[in-house]
Amino acid sequence: MSFSFSKKYVSAFLTDEEIFAYREQIRAAHRALHEKTGAGSDYTGWIDLPVNYDKAEFARIKDAAKRIQAHSDLLIVIGIGGSYLGARAVIEAVKSQNYNALCKDTPAIYFSGNSISGTALRELVSLCEGKDFSVNVISKSGTTTEPAIAFRVFRKMLIEKYGKEGAAARIFVTTDKQKGTLKHLADTEGYETFVVPDNVGGRYSVLTAVGLLPIAAAGIDIDDPAENACYRYVAIRNALYRKGKKTELFACYEPNFTMMNEWLKQLFGESEGKDGKGLFPTSAIFSTDLHSLGQYIQQGERILFETVIHLRAPQLDYEIQAEEDNVDGLNFLAGKPLSFVSEKAFQGTVLAHYDGGVPNVILTLDRLDEANLGYLIYFFEKACAVSGYVLGVNPFDQPGVESYKRNMFALLGKPGYEKEKEALEHRLSM
Amino acid sequence: MSFSFSKKYVSAFLTDEEIFAYREQIRAAHRALHEKTGAGSDYTGWIDLPVNYDKAEFARIKDAAKRIQAHSDLLIVIGIGGSYLGARAVIEAVKSQNYNALCKDTPAIYFSGNSISGTALRELVSLCEGKDFSVNVISKSGTTTEPAIAFRVFRKMLIEKYGKEGAAARIFVTTDKQKGTLKHLADTEGYETFVVPDNVGGRYSVLTAVGLLPIAAAGIDIDDPAENACYRYVAIRNALYRKGKKTELFACYEPNFTMMNEWLKQLFGESEGKDGKGLFPTSAIFSTDLHSLGQYIQQGERILFETVIHLRAPQLDYEIQAEEDNVDGLNFLAGKPLSFVSEKAFQGTVLAHYDGGVPNVILTLDRLDEANLGYLIYFFEKACAVSGYVLGVNPFDQPGVESYKRNMFALLGKPGYEKEKEALEHRLSM
Repeated sequence: MSFSFSKKYVSAFLTDEEIFAYREQIRAAHRALHEKTGAGSDYTGWIDLPVNYDKAEFARIKDAAKRIQAHSDLLIVIGIGGSYLGARAVIEAVKSQNYNALCKDTPAIYFSGNSISGTALRELVSLCEGKDFSVNVISKSGTTTEPAIAFRVFRKMLIEKYGKEGAAARIFVTTDKQKGTLKHLADTEGYETFVVPDNVGGRYSVLTAVGLLPIAAAGIDIDDPAENACYRYVAIRNALYRKGKKTELFACYEPNFTMMNEWLKQLFGESEGKDGKGLFPTSAIFSTDLHSLGQYIQQGERILFETVIHLRAPQLDYEIQAEEDNVDGLNFLAGKPLSFVSEKAFQGTVLAHYDGGVPNVILTLDRLDEANLGYLIYFFEKACAVSGYVLGVNPFDQPGVESYKRNMFALLGKPGYEKEKEALEHRLSM
Repeated sequence: MSFSFSKKYVSAFLTDEEIFAYREQIRAAHRALHEKTGAGSDYTGWIDLPVNYDKAEFARIKDAAKRIQAHSDLLIVIGIGGSYLGARAVIEAVKSQNYNALCKDTPAIYFSGNSISGTALRELVSLCEGKDFSVNVISKSGTTTEPAIAFRVFRKMLIEKYGKEGAAARIFVTTDKQKGTLKHLADTEGYETFVVPDNVGGRYSVLTAVGLLPIAAAGIDIDDPAENACYRYVAIRNALYRKGKKTELFACYEPNFTMMNEWLKQLFGESEGKDGKGLFPTSAIFSTDLHSLGQYIQQGERILFETVIHLRAPQLDYEIQAEEDNVDGLNFLAGKPLSFVSEKAFQGTVLAHYDGGVPNVILTLDRLDEANLGYLIYFFEKACAVSGYVLGVNPFDQPGVESYKRNMFALLGKPGYEKEKEALEHRLSM
């Protein structure tokens, strides 16, 4: 495994002095993070996860994954936000976006409870018909609306199909270690439980049972994370932000990275987007999106910088073959693998965007395998936490997420919200 | 079919005077567009598409779709940018994101040639093994790198499997009406061809053969556009842009709208993002992304406004059932469909984000069926063209897309780029 970081294509936009100016702030943030003296320090348990985790639970996760593989055609993973994105991102990056069409010895994995769409729910229900399936429900409290609704539906289906006891062997609950409605239900019904740790927030939880059970069920090896590069990245992104580059575009040339981009958007957006501050996180898959967002990146408002996740080698490759007639004029590429073409597209694009006024930070890793991806996840988690401290926000809370929920509960008529309901309905009717 | 537009949740950010200030500019833009006197007027053929199109070709499209349905388990659609996003967006919105897992009487549809990933290409090749498949290759010139590579691969596979003549019955070419390598090849080999019109650019082409053949192959009815609302939307988005809201976030509560969001990002990003100007287009699916980007939207930098595509009714719905034990506390929702919960989430979120300082433009349509989606596509195309004129850019060109391509061709060693190659390689090695 190797990892490298390049700030070469930032140089026209930031001097070394402007980057070094953040050194003391970053050192202080590093200390606050590791000595647990900063804002939100109760939620920094993820720092030690690569070396310090519950070995017994880890063995149970691998064992449960084997049972799911043995008795299920489908695994329905129920969760939202941090209880959804990490697992899906890793499975698609390491396996494939087309995992469900390609999987042979491992169950198809569908994610539910991450929207309020009756269409999406009915479709998943129909996909379970005539199939053997299991459920992994992931929720700290058990009361988050979206997953709670989905769990009602699939739990009932399991009980009707397999009986109470049969269903109990197919329901895997990842929740609080001792309290909450889901923990209570699991203990009463005999469902196997895994722990959402108290000291790890949702968006930092992919390397806990939250992410690891679905990942292991997909047949991914979960056994196996350069501070220096991480902190240079932090200095650069903060310096660019202060210079008006308020949007960070995460870009990768591998379509299977699509959901990792979504994971990055949650990690950074929820950690930094508060107190009227923060880089707006957005993403692209190249070369696909060079044919859609490429024009804007090249010549639009100069409010962007890119963080490119560059892979040295692909998971699979394809050699371009010579053709006698050469009607498409591609014979100059004959004998070359697609990874060669992609590498040149990457180099050409970095230069073009840099020339167009878009700073490019480049993170290079060998490939999207388990070890490299685990490292990358930890790199970004650490960079995000330290960045938050440098920005002067608490990178571990998300107070703004409650605003829409409070309104929604009131409008839904949830008991206890009667007064708010009236006020909101009055506003809506004006 | 009905469609409505609300600027109620923009009112705290813009006065009526600020909106009306754009009236004359919009009138002039409207005239320039319809009288074909504005920049890029050679590419405004899409304006008349809802009423004025080639009826004979339209019948051939429906006939080809029937043949594909009859003899193919899979249809591989090869194209990138506007030759990819529109068809995929419509199929997922009208049918499903899980169309390939759910389809029964119609072929699975996979999109290829939209990246340079050997992994993605190999996966698709393996999905064709043992299956009957057809190819619809979509490229005006036939020389765009990504689709040209993919077409080489799948054409060869078809010839090896079905012979030259058998392959000819399974290759459908959407290209220039008379010139180019792909048109030449199709005529030589006897492939059926459909036309990419000269006067319609890629991102405006979904209602031409470019989008319609794959859409019809998926079993979607293609037989079947309120200027006033459109132009009010234009006025508001331009006024917000001038007040520093430089990012437009398209949001919808239906997961099947995900690729329509991608289509919108290309349409607006490529049309407006030039000359250092333009709203940066980004997107979200709610409630999913309220659990990832929601925090940033609620409390981050106040550089955003939202354009919410609000659906009155879902395609499918699911009624929440009462449960005796009510462990999850959801019984107050018993008897209510998910669409009710989603509607309250929408209302609660609009109010929360508006209170948080994010203007919300709301476009309401009945449902995601063929007629409504067709209308919505045309609404956005028109809004985009007029917006571009108001912004003072040519909404029909995309000069910036060539920058990375030139670099890439040089670095790949394409004949004729020798000098650039040397210069670029020198820069990369510094």
